[in-house]
Amino acid sequence: MAKIGKNVKIGDNTTIYDNVEIGDNTIVCNDCILGEPFNDYYSDMDNYENPPTVIGPNSLIRSHTLIYADNIFGEGLHCGHRATVREKSRFGEHCSIGTLCDIQGYSVFGDYVRMHSNVHIGHFSKIGNYCWIFPYTVFTNDPTPPSEICVGPTVGDYSIVATHCLLLPGVKIGQHCLIGACSMVSKDVPDYQVVVGSPGKVVKDIRSIKDRETGEAHYPWPFRFDRGMPWKGIGYEEWLNQQH
Amino acid sequence: MAKIGKNVKIGDNTTIYDNVEIGDNTIVCNDCILGEPFNDYYSDMDNYENPPTVIGPNSLIRSHTLIYADNIFGEGLHCGHRATVREKSRFGEHCSIGTLCDIQGYSVFGDYVRMHSNVHIGHFSKIGNYCWIFPYTVFTNDPTPPSEICVGPTVGDYSIVATHCLLLPGVKIGQHCLIGACSMVSKDVPDYQVVVGSPGKVVKDIRSIKDRETGEAHYPWPFRFDRGMPWKGIGYEEWLNQQH
Amino acid sequence: MAKIGKNVKIGDNTTIYDNVEIGDNTIVCNDCILGEPFNDYYSDMDNYENPPTVIGPNSLIRSHTLIYADNIFGEGLHCGHRATVREKSRFGEHCSIGTLCDIQGYSVFGDYVRMHSNVHIGHFSKIGNYCWIFPYTVFTNDPTPPSEICVGPTVGDYSIVATHCLLLPGVKIGQHCLIGACSMVSKDVPDYQVVVGSPGKVVKDIRSIKDRETGEAHYPWPFRFDRGMPWKGIGYEEWLNQQH
Repeated sequence: MAKIGKNVKIGDNTTIYDNVEIGDNTIVCNDCILGEPFNDYYSDMDNYENPPTVIGPNSLIRSHTLIYADNIFGEGLHCGHRATVREKSRFGEHCSIGTLCDIQGYSVFGDYVRMHSNVHIGHFSKIGNYCWIFPYTVFTNDPTPPSEICVGPTVGDYSIVATHCLLLPGVKIGQHCLIGACSMVSKDVPDYQVVVGSPGKVVKDIRSIKDRETGEAHYPWPFRFDRGMPWKGIGYEEWLNQQH
Repeated sequence: MAKIGKNVKIGDNTTIYDNVEIGDNTIVCNDCILGEPFNDYYSDMDNYENPPTVIGPNSLIRSHTLIYADNIFGEGLHCGHRATVREKSRFGEHCSIGTLCDIQGYSVFGDYVRMHSNVHIGHFSKIGNYCWIFPYTVFTNDPTPPSEICVGPTVGDYSIVATHCLLLPGVKIGQHCLIGACSMVSKDVPDYQVVVGSPGKVVKDIRSIKDRETGEAHYPWPFRFDRGMPWKGIGYEEWLNQQH
Repeated sequence: MAKIGKNVKIGDNTTIYDNVEIGDNTIVCNDCILGEPFNDYYSDMDNYENPPTVIGPNSLIRSHTLIYADNIFGEGLHCGHRATVREKSRFGEHCSIGTLCDIQGYSVFGDYVRMHSNVHIGHFSKIGNYCWIFPYTVFTNDPTPPSEICVGPTVGDYSIVATHCLLLPGVKIGQHCLIGACSMVSKDVPDYQVVVGSPGKVVKDIRSIKDRETGEAHYPWPFRFDRGMPWKGIGYEEWLNQQH
């Protein structure tokens, strides 16, 4: 049985499997599947028990999205169209998963993780809070394919991975890093570093990137960007102070 | 209310929202959504008014395609499977949008634009007439992500962007250019130039590319290719003369 | 009429067109389309005859997958979600096609070909037995786009093409090769070679790759990996002997 909160809207032709819990005020659009059962369901339907899936309140899940059982999402999830989320990941609050994203599962996401369209996250990835991942970026996990080794990448808080990047298995990216478009990250990246190229190399400190017109620093980005962020209205510095 | 032309065929489980106009002789296959409403629809359904969406006559929209409201397409649109077209773009005649394309919206497309599978077009892109965009190519628009700056790339008439390319925010590609596979375009490209590499560099004039066997020039391509083009049967030169 | 084997399960909202044959014990999940007809069907429905499509026994086809008519699959096909398989390919036994793969058709696949998510295979590709193709890899076929020339790549038995690669038209990759992540293969690759870079260069013999901890050779991979392979339990060497 599913557990549907108050004021939840569910679109046509959406299927919700057993043991799915949907928080209040959530919108699920057309043609979605929530709580997709594991393989055993198809081979032994009579004895299969679907593990719990939790969609937090105030979420918006757009059409054709498919979320497997055994995923837990905090409040304010935003899902684009045709996202695929395989089993056994944990997501913080206010995450966003773009159109055509393919989350392979067994991964951990912090709060306010923003994945744009068509991001591929392999098994055992770890993504911190306030991270941005741009289209066609892939997190890999097998250093010598095919094998039974599986070590996902790690991305620290506030870091940005631009479009068309590839993170090699097990790389660790620090906090407040920027991985430039079309980079292949093959080594660990210390905090505040900018990496470009394939293989990627550290080219500068992110704090040295200035706006060409104003000469002001662009990064760390929370000082100049607040759309959808918890520091909206009060500013990042004030918000940081309030956290302590 | 939707306005459906003569001899239009609409597949099973296809949803057509308010204010969609479909031209004569158009085929819409199974499981499509046309005129998908904006976010406000979900938050305030009673007061929401869907802006107009126009699909020109003689179009073919394949299964699972999703087109948001406030898009205008000229006649002869061809859409592959699972294309996603967000709001507020304008398309000329005889455009083609491949399987899994993700058009983010607020963009302008000329006539006879051919997008192959899995092309991603960010906001505020401008694509001329008779352009070819190949799979996994991405048009980006944010020079310092995340930010509120949004400047899309521009591609001139007859230009070709091959597979797995990335256009950085605001780059301008001239007419009759060829961007080679796996290139990242970071600077403007003058007319008739061939760019390869990451970052991309101009390597030659497109008119110098010869067929290995015949020694004839391959480009400008309209002289030797006419499938689906308006100069079919009469030749590009004669057709050009007729335009004046 | 379709021909459905014994103990076949078919999910909700799945459409099966004329002349599709499904082998015993196969599972087809929700929202799939099998035997999608060619264009002529839409223009002249009365005279259209759908060519045969064969799905072998013991297959699993996950939700939202679309398979055109005139495809033949051997037994044990595994299909992820939202795979698209256009017309006229031939697949051996135990192939696997990942989520969001886009197989353009007119291609030949051996036995035990493993395509991970979001692989794009252009027309006239040839992939041998026991090949692995990783996400966002693209097989191209037009050397001077746009043109009417169409020459697909060839990949030999046991070869591996890692994530985010591009194979240029007509390249031939030998047996037991490894194409590293983010490579663009522009030349033929002899057996047992490792290629990296864009354009890709041969950097070593695959048999020289050792495990850092144990010092043992990782490749040829069949000696140390058997999940889902016909040599499971008996070992690759013994299995090879049995083949003769």
